[in-house]
Amino acid sequence: MKYYDLRSDTITKPTEAMRKAMASAEVGDDVYREDPTTTRLEAMAAELTGKERGLFVSSGSMGNLISLYINGGRSNEVFTAANSHIIQHEIGSLSAIAGVLPISFDVPRGILNADIFIGKVKQGDYDMATTTLIEVENTIGGYCYPLENLEGIKDFASTHDLKVHMDGARIFNAQVATGIPVKTYANYADTITFCLSKGLGCPVGSVLCGDEAFINKALTIRKMLGGGMRQTGVLAAAGIYALENHVDRLADDHAHAKALADALAKGGWAEVDVEGVQTNIIFFRVPSLSSSEVVSQLAKQGILANSEGEMIRLVTNLDLHDEDITELCTRLEHFPLEVDA
Amino acid sequence: MKYYDLRSDTITKPTEAMRKAMASAEVGDDVYREDPTTTRLEAMAAELTGKERGLFVSSGSMGNLISLYINGGRSNEVFTAANSHIIQHEIGSLSAIAGVLPISFDVPRGILNADIFIGKVKQGDYDMATTTLIEVENTIGGYCYPLENLEGIKDFASTHDLKVHMDGARIFNAQVATGIPVKTYANYADTITFCLSKGLGCPVGSVLCGDEAFINKALTIRKMLGGGMRQTGVLAAAGIYALENHVDRLADDHAHAKALADALAKGGWAEVDVEGVQTNIIFFRVPSLSSSEVVSQLAKQGILANSEGEMIRLVTNLDLHDEDITELCTRLEHFPLEVDA
Amino acid sequence: MKYYDLRSDTITKPTEAMRKAMASAEVGDDVYREDPTTTRLEAMAAELTGKERGLFVSSGSMGNLISLYINGGRSNEVFTAANSHIIQHEIGSLSAIAGVLPISFDVPRGILNADIFIGKVKQGDYDMATTTLIEVENTIGGYCYPLENLEGIKDFASTHDLKVHMDGARIFNAQVATGIPVKTYANYADTITFCLSKGLGCPVGSVLCGDEAFINKALTIRKMLGGGMRQTGVLAAAGIYALENHVDRLADDHAHAKALADALAKGGWAEVDVEGVQTNIIFFRVPSLSSSEVVSQLAKQGILANSEGEMIRLVTNLDLHDEDITELCTRLEHFPLEVDA
Amino acid sequence: MKYYDLRSDTITKPTEAMRKAMASAEVGDDVYREDPTTTRLEAMAAELTGKERGLFVSSGSMGNLISLYINGGRSNEVFTAANSHIIQHEIGSLSAIAGVLPISFDVPRGILNADIFIGKVKQGDYDMATTTLIEVENTIGGYCYPLENLEGIKDFASTHDLKVHMDGARIFNAQVATGIPVKTYANYADTITFCLSKGLGCPVGSVLCGDEAFINKALTIRKMLGGGMRQTGVLAAAGIYALENHVDRLADDHAHAKALADALAKGGWAEVDVEGVQTNIIFFRVPSLSSSEVVSQLAKQGILANSEGEMIRLVTNLDLHDEDITELCTRLEHFPLEVDA
Repeated sequence: MKYYDLRSDTITKPTEAMRKAMASAEVGDDVYREDPTTTRLEAMAAELTGKERGLFVSSGSMGNLISLYINGGRSNEVFTAANSHIIQHEIGSLSAIAGVLPISFDVPRGILNADIFIGKVKQGDYDMATTTLIEVENTIGGYCYPLENLEGIKDFASTHDLKVHMDGARIFNAQVATGIPVKTYANYADTITFCLSKGLGCPVGSVLCGDEAFINKALTIRKMLGGGMRQTGVLAAAGIYALENHVDRLADDHAHAKALADALAKGGWAEVDVEGVQTNIIFFRVPSLSSSEVVSQLAKQGILANSEGEMIRLVTNLDLHDEDITELCTRLEHFPLEVDA
Repeated sequence: MKYYDLRSDTITKPTEAMRKAMASAEVGDDVYREDPTTTRLEAMAAELTGKERGLFVSSGSMGNLISLYINGGRSNEVFTAANSHIIQHEIGSLSAIAGVLPISFDVPRGILNADIFIGKVKQGDYDMATTTLIEVENTIGGYCYPLENLEGIKDFASTHDLKVHMDGARIFNAQVATGIPVKTYANYADTITFCLSKGLGCPVGSVLCGDEAFINKALTIRKMLGGGMRQTGVLAAAGIYALENHVDRLADDHAHAKALADALAKGGWAEVDVEGVQTNIIFFRVPSLSSSEVVSQLAKQGILANSEGEMIRLVTNLDLHDEDITELCTRLEHFPLEVDA
Repeated sequence: MKYYDLRSDTITKPTEAMRKAMASAEVGDDVYREDPTTTRLEAMAAELTGKERGLFVSSGSMGNLISLYINGGRSNEVFTAANSHIIQHEIGSLSAIAGVLPISFDVPRGILNADIFIGKVKQGDYDMATTTLIEVENTIGGYCYPLENLEGIKDFASTHDLKVHMDGARIFNAQVATGIPVKTYANYADTITFCLSKGLGCPVGSVLCGDEAFINKALTIRKMLGGGMRQTGVLAAAGIYALENHVDRLADDHAHAKALADALAKGGWAEVDVEGVQTNIIFFRVPSLSSSEVVSQLAKQGILANSEGEMIRLVTNLDLHDEDITELCTRLEHFPLEVDA
Repeated sequence: MKYYDLRSDTITKPTEAMRKAMASAEVGDDVYREDPTTTRLEAMAAELTGKERGLFVSSGSMGNLISLYINGGRSNEVFTAANSHIIQHEIGSLSAIAGVLPISFDVPRGILNADIFIGKVKQGDYDMATTTLIEVENTIGGYCYPLENLEGIKDFASTHDLKVHMDGARIFNAQVATGIPVKTYANYADTITFCLSKGLGCPVGSVLCGDEAFINKALTIRKMLGGGMRQTGVLAAAGIYALENHVDRLADDHAHAKALADALAKGGWAEVDVEGVQTNIIFFRVPSLSSSEVVSQLAKQGILANSEGEMIRLVTNLDLHDEDITELCTRLEHFPLEVDA
């Protein structure tokens, strides 16, 4: 039986063309800021996000952490969604390293809106924390942030002198799904991170973007975290290749995800919010079974998935092609669920 | 016009009898662990809470912080209520100093129950945080923790090898209001802090209680925070006096609070949850006005209150007597609210 | 046999007069900044040190930590002596809490001079730490800082835009020993902490002094550490009493220390730097024995001392009177050292 | 005029053969621990160092930080040399992130010996820090650690239950210079980091080695720092290639360094410790000029160097060949020093 890996879009392998770009990359020592390919990637990222500068970092987690460290600030408060990546998947680094206190909001799909912040901002009292930052994640759980929410959040942030950080790990999926340019999304944030290693198919890395002063500080924090690397051009070349060649094809991943969600719905053994599948991620649950049990049964049918709390998550990606999806749809529609497991 | 201070129960001044106890306290250097009065207070606290040992600390915040530092642990997760003191009133020390990531739950009155934790515990995955601690606050917003909730939480904690910390700043209010002994409450937690400086009327201090190994570590962390003090017997003597003389009289504060809540309800200009007033704290709101505006109007009528988010908070205390409450009820029932302010 | 406690000057007990001052202190809630006695002590401290404001803190360690937190700053470098209190006796709080990297200098008696800093300041490189602070301790090991060293350090600091913090735990000993006013010493530092609980004989507390902006930040950090206390007037009253009554008498402690050092020198069994005994601290060693062994033998003769690394430390204090010193001199001069222990 | 880059051995570019190895590397998602090439590199590193396991990390700084975080531990003390990389070049991360307090020793060439630790270990007192770790760097300033020093340090560490971490960024230089195998050096340490990106010529990365339990924890800390990367096989392939092909050739770098040191000595305008040049690093000074001025004059002659405090540092590396060294010797011997600059 053939196995299909839908655990994440991080598992993709660099294509031959991408490997070629990496192999021929012009390089230098990036700690000395002399790697021309990295510099070019960072300029591209700045251009795409409409920010003054970009900075290559080894992961989205590192990009988020640096932003929380600088614009959150030790002992200050950051507003975020309860299901955000920084809360659920970064091993507490926002607290353990940045020293930031998260004020988290349990909102549908993790989509924040400014109204819920009213009366929650702390500023001006010596015996209270200071709220400094709002963190949004776009996409979150595969769902695209509505622009009106981002507008409200930005206005609220301006009024209260807060910064906004966007974890745009999959921001290109949002662009492709909605037609709204990354630059438009990024305009609602002071800083933004996007990942090269997820849907875009690179082996390693993310880019953190912001203004000149921010990136200058970010350089120091990246080094302090041990994230200063040398001839990063070999990795940045993959990023450039992906930005030039792998963005539009995310539409395939989205169509694939929709097809899988439909198959699940038809199958009738799982609860899936088909409407919520806007990009490349499908969440579903099986009412009578634990998520880990379902993941285990999926594996027996050659489908590798992840559990996330009580949900099961499937992620389409660059390494899954039309024929794979056809086969997967069949398997999911006619899934031999063992209920008494 | 006479002013009445209902901002908090921390504002009380030591009585003459308490001052006498302080003035005649036998003392020694507590950093060398040689202050006999402090030792006696700590033993009393241990006895009252049913724990092996107590440790005098300069504030409830320090007691909580030490417990989070030791039993939470850097980069680990702690479950707590969204409106808990550690989240709202300790300037992010749980993150900035203890390095702990709070996973907060927005539950009615801040009363947690084990069901909401299901599927949220993180353990065993290298790339995830580890959940280590549940923090409960009793009373919280003046409300007493139902025992069945504490039972469920303790069972859940045992099952998942989590510790429980109880911020019992006003645990004696709970004992007096419910008749449930402090020891019974404390039995549901591994560590507990209670305050001497709130309803009990002492000038300074709290006691952190736990087992021998925990308190030995706590001694070190207290010193590291700068909380090692010398002849603390002068403060501990007040604590002993309060434990012997000021516990039962909390019933007066509770009756006073009930009377004020009733007066507010009769007045009709404010929304107050009379049922929720179990001890010495009243929360209310005025639908059309901001809490800070209401606090300002109250001050003009000689009533000092605090705002907390969108709510106004009144706290009865040792320095408010029957005749004060009579007068306050009159003022609150016939309050000249300016709606167009 | 009568026992004499020379382990530290922290072990002194409040006098009757001091207790009376405490018992009658006017108080308020200092977290609301409404304790009049604390306010008065802070104003006195500001006046004595020539700084804009003072802040009562529960220990010298907390005062130092707050200054390192604010004026050192996370990931920055602070210059200090290898034998300074912040390195040797504060349980790593400068690193664990303030996040500051100490660059320590192993200099005779811990007296720094600006020449050793030349070429060591780090500033302006993104991939390097930033030096922000110089910390001096006066007295250090009982030795008074020469003014020319402080002048040089202040000049160096100005040139390189560094702050200076003075741990003046025993700065009043320096004033009494040298005739140089505390204000003159403090003028070489941006911030200074002095202790009320050592030679001055108070049960608890220190005062941290600096300019308005600094103290405003310090208020927040003190609260975050759990160091916010309520009716601190009961402790501050002791401080005021001590500043008014216990400063000049430090001369007695100094004379006593000199007498003890002379007795040790006469005794011939210990190596003691009599010249170095400028205030109330005597360090000595016994070449053939470990310091802990000597401390143990001293205890058998009714003399309680501390070891510090390879040295034994004796500290004279308020609870030791002329007749005690006479007896101690006899015991030390004719000490029955057991060499084969 | 041709420029030669001797600022560091980090500036080397991957060779064609290395690029080929990278381009054809078999990869997987290393966060899921499924990258076969990374796994192979880690196994090679474990074998070479004689440790149970290896872990690929993005930099030597990250490897050191992880070891300090785990085996140092928050608020504990680590012994290290005053000129060590962790003190001088890691932006205070040992304090800011690991929360460790360094006790630094100013010893010739940074070579520690156990004698200087006597009486400095802190253990067992609740009010003191705890010493947990000794950190050694090999080579340090290009100098190889004498085995007898490492033996003494290991014995001391065993006696006092301390761990030893070796920053072996250039440990292969030590092996080639002394003939002592890396495994022998590593045997004196519990954990060791070595760099692939310095003399070995890789674009990115280091390997941290230790026992099973340590590496399991290290995986979590690496992820928390943002150092978890995906298809790291593309980088690990370079590491494998270097370990197989670039170790022995370090002898060339060492011969080159010796030749440059001799040329400097012959030139007579600089003070250089020729004896101290054991591997690929030359330190020298010009008595009458600042190091930054000398670096500037060197640049005008086509020689790129770094200053480090008052010293100038030259580092030979993979990109410098025999003919380059010949030319450089000529330039250095006949250097047109401008003394009145």
